Amino acid sequence: MSINPKEGAPKEAKPPKKGAIALKTPKGTRDWIGADINLRDDIFANISRVFKAHGGTPLDTPVFELSEILTNKYGEDSRLIYELQDQGGELCSLRYDLTVPLARYLAQSSTLNMKRYQIAKVYRRDNPSIARGRLREFFQCDFDTVGEYDTMIPDSEILCIAVEVFESLGMADDITIKLNHRKILDGLFRVAGVPEDKIRPISSAVDKLDKAPWAEVKKEMVEEKGLDEAVADKIGEYVKHSGGPELIELLRKDTEAMANENVEAGLKEMSLLFDYLKAYDITSKVSFDLSLARGLDYYTGLIYEVVTKLPPDAKAHDEESRIGSIAAGGRYDNLVGMFGKRQIPCVGISFGVDRIFTILKTRQEKEKQAARKADVYIMAFGGKGFDGLLAERMAIARMLWKEGIRTEFSAKVKPKLPQQFKAAETNDIPLAVILGEGEVAEGKLRLKRLGLGEGQSAEEKDGRLLAKEDLVAEVKKYLAENA
Amino acid sequence: MSINPKEGAPKEAKPPKKGAIALKTPKGTRDWIGADINLRDDIFANISRVFKAHGGTPLDTPVFELSEILTNKYGEDSRLIYELQDQGGELCSLRYDLTVPLARYLAQSSTLNMKRYQIAKVYRRDNPSIARGRLREFFQCDFDTVGEYDTMIPDSEILCIAVEVFESLGMADDITIKLNHRKILDGLFRVAGVPEDKIRPISSAVDKLDKAPWAEVKKEMVEEKGLDEAVADKIGEYVKHSGGPELIELLRKDTEAMANENVEAGLKEMSLLFDYLKAYDITSKVSFDLSLARGLDYYTGLIYEVVTKLPPDAKAHDEESRIGSIAAGGRYDNLVGMFGKRQIPCVGISFGVDRIFTILKTRQEKEKQAARKADVYIMAFGGKGFDGLLAERMAIARMLWKEGIRTEFSAKVKPKLPQQFKAAETNDIPLAVILGEGEVAEGKLRLKRLGLGEGQSAEEKDGRLLAKEDLVAEVKKYLAENA
Repeated sequence: MSINPKEGAPKEAKPPKKGAIALKTPKGTRDWIGADINLRDDIFANISRVFKAHGGTPLDTPVFELSEILTNKYGEDSRLIYELQDQGGELCSLRYDLTVPLARYLAQSSTLNMKRYQIAKVYRRDNPSIARGRLREFFQCDFDTVGEYDTMIPDSEILCIAVEVFESLGMADDITIKLNHRKILDGLFRVAGVPEDKIRPISSAVDKLDKAPWAEVKKEMVEEKGLDEAVADKIGEYVKHSGGPELIELLRKDTEAMANENVEAGLKEMSLLFDYLKAYDITSKVSFDLSLARGLDYYTGLIYEVVTKLPPDAKAHDEESRIGSIAAGGRYDNLVGMFGKRQIPCVGISFGVDRIFTILKTRQEKEKQAARKADVYIMAFGGKGFDGLLAERMAIARMLWKEGIRTEFSAKVKPKLPQQFKAAETNDIPLAVILGEGEVAEGKLRLKRLGLGEGQSAEEKDGRLLAKEDLVAEVKKYLAENA
Repeated sequence: MSINPKEGAPKEAKPPKKGAIALKTPKGTRDWIGADINLRDDIFANISRVFKAHGGTPLDTPVFELSEILTNKYGEDSRLIYELQDQGGELCSLRYDLTVPLARYLAQSSTLNMKRYQIAKVYRRDNPSIARGRLREFFQCDFDTVGEYDTMIPDSEILCIAVEVFESLGMADDITIKLNHRKILDGLFRVAGVPEDKIRPISSAVDKLDKAPWAEVKKEMVEEKGLDEAVADKIGEYVKHSGGPELIELLRKDTEAMANENVEAGLKEMSLLFDYLKAYDITSKVSFDLSLARGLDYYTGLIYEVVTKLPPDAKAHDEESRIGSIAAGGRYDNLVGMFGKRQIPCVGISFGVDRIFTILKTRQEKEKQAARKADVYIMAFGGKGFDGLLAERMAIARMLWKEGIRTEFSAKVKPKLPQQFKAAETNDIPLAVILGEGEVAEGKLRLKRLGLGEGQSAEEKDGRLLAKEDLVAEVKKYLAENA
């Protein structure tokens, strides 16, 4: 994994001395360089290609907006907005997503319809979790269709874009798109007896069901948000359902629910949507999931979230090993109108590139590791009269083989150093053990990372001097960290 | 010009009503969309191609840094740094440039040499001037060579990169690279009698010589910064010099100056530099200019600034028509060491893409305007029995021709509307006057902008209804705004 456990700080960074400047990026941010940028740019290129195939126009907005533009758009998450200091002049905030800036752009311009895309960093003062790919500065890739069109036609195209993006990234087999509809959800809450002013807070609580068990969510509803326990239980009955178009039929048999006009209208739209998804041949990629709520206040219709299927060996409740949704979005017909000029209906999706990056990077590393034949290459070098240290190379190899560490060395008595490096690098072997005559005499050797490229420190160039008995532990540590 | 006089707000944006949200981007920022993004991306692609040809590796750093990282790096300009609000946790500031983040990266990593480039937005709470392409959020494209190398070899390559970037943009004939050397400049200040603690403030004052006459700069030195008038006059004698390698010989004859070891060392380096510039065949692009000082504190050696030559019809002192430097940089050998770990010498350049964009966009518009045959196309349309309104079209054409406005209309008695549109758009004509029977009877007509693409308002689609007598003024206004 390239995202560093110390939040972007290279591994050798030491905690700063008292009074010294902390040499690191701010919490939850990271530097991007080298192979990471190449992989990231590949992801951007694939996503942009799909966006362009669907007629998208790029838009680039400022990194900060007037603070009042962001006010009342994000519900409970507003506390995560980064504010700029009041240094005189306008009050500004870093953008929290790319959707509200789009709405601001639409409200101020004369544009009535467009397909716009934007790939840019957004900012959230959230608790960073590097392992889950959750940072405070992260990329979003957004595509939104703006304008009045016939029901569910743009919505289904957005879902098609989602499938095509993950097809382009070779991830289509690993994803499911969860669908729900705000009208159905809000209608069911009303049917269950949730008071009008509690609809949004209860919706927020339901949104946590992908991370927390029902008992915990129920507790939040009842104890924190003051909902009747019976009402909560009724919600619990509804949100356990998920599946395909057959769920529409199931709900249609629920006369109590169908008496609510929102539920009825939402189901009609879902039914139409499933017709279009069939035409696009992507029905197998979606799951109609009544527990999907989406935290944001501004959604008004269809909502969706792309999740990765857990690998079979992952524990479902191992929070750190899970990566949340990797794309999400929905229909928001009233957001532009919040700026007071006119209503323009919109539907869109946002891809979380940092999480996608984390998945693809891990996969790359695993493939690379599986493809190579060995993890350690033992080399020897010396000056005039150098005897090749063959016995020493054999002894070290035996030591590593015993531990199950895949190890190779040259089958020549007196191999030349450049040839040994070439053999190791041709086979993409990540570690070299380098034996020199003087060091061998002292029971020492050097352990060097290969393939670091330019700009190495002296220690990285020459390898780290170790006592022979520390080698196994160091190699295992490296392999564990780079598994 | 696409950069809007109202700082990014589309032209039709009205001032907000009391209590309403201001629908605009923050002061000094703008949205990028459509043809502007395409031109900008072309500029990025050209610059990146040059950077890659010289072995550059991309680096992407967070948009904000820990505030203490930026402290004491920018001299008088530190007041322009955007601070994030203290919301608990670390204090952060938006990056002011890409150089200090690079230095932070180098100080925390084990990298001892690299050629890195970064293309990203930076933030300065400066007084925005749209006409001069000076914004509060703007792009920089930086290339820096990091590491110990022989004197002036990386420095001359950076100047070569500057020339190649402007060659790739078709601007090589319009630029001059001003050069100076901090050792020479500081040495001459000492020779002139500037006290040690006033060297940097006096250097800052000299830096304003490209914008202000000597009398004003002298006034700042004497009245604001308390320099002896005689010392200021001596500086005045030095900074008036500029030219090619012959200036080195001129200074070598100044025994008083040459007695200063900084001046002597600086001249030796400049002489070596001119040898290398000759080898790269770019001597004609540079001017050794003793009045160049560069505001930033961190430069230690060669400094440079790329300026555009004024077009022959521009007034030299018309502040608004001038665009400042379009690229700048220098050698900064002590910046990485300010972070306390170790010294790593660096030399780099930063290209101001927004200013380059403004120049190229204006040029594009002018070329487009010069290439097209007419500015107005007069069209007629009507229902059954429509007579073609030929006499009316002729009368309107005559009205515009009299004013010298290039005008065309169809040579058919009863032209079809789509054919008229096609004729206008094929010839890239920006304005259509549309005559309808009912409107003509009332002495009215419609003026429509062509080529707006998708997403137009109803008024933009149909054209704006005008009284016939207002047409000339409206057309002239459009042509003046889009000249």
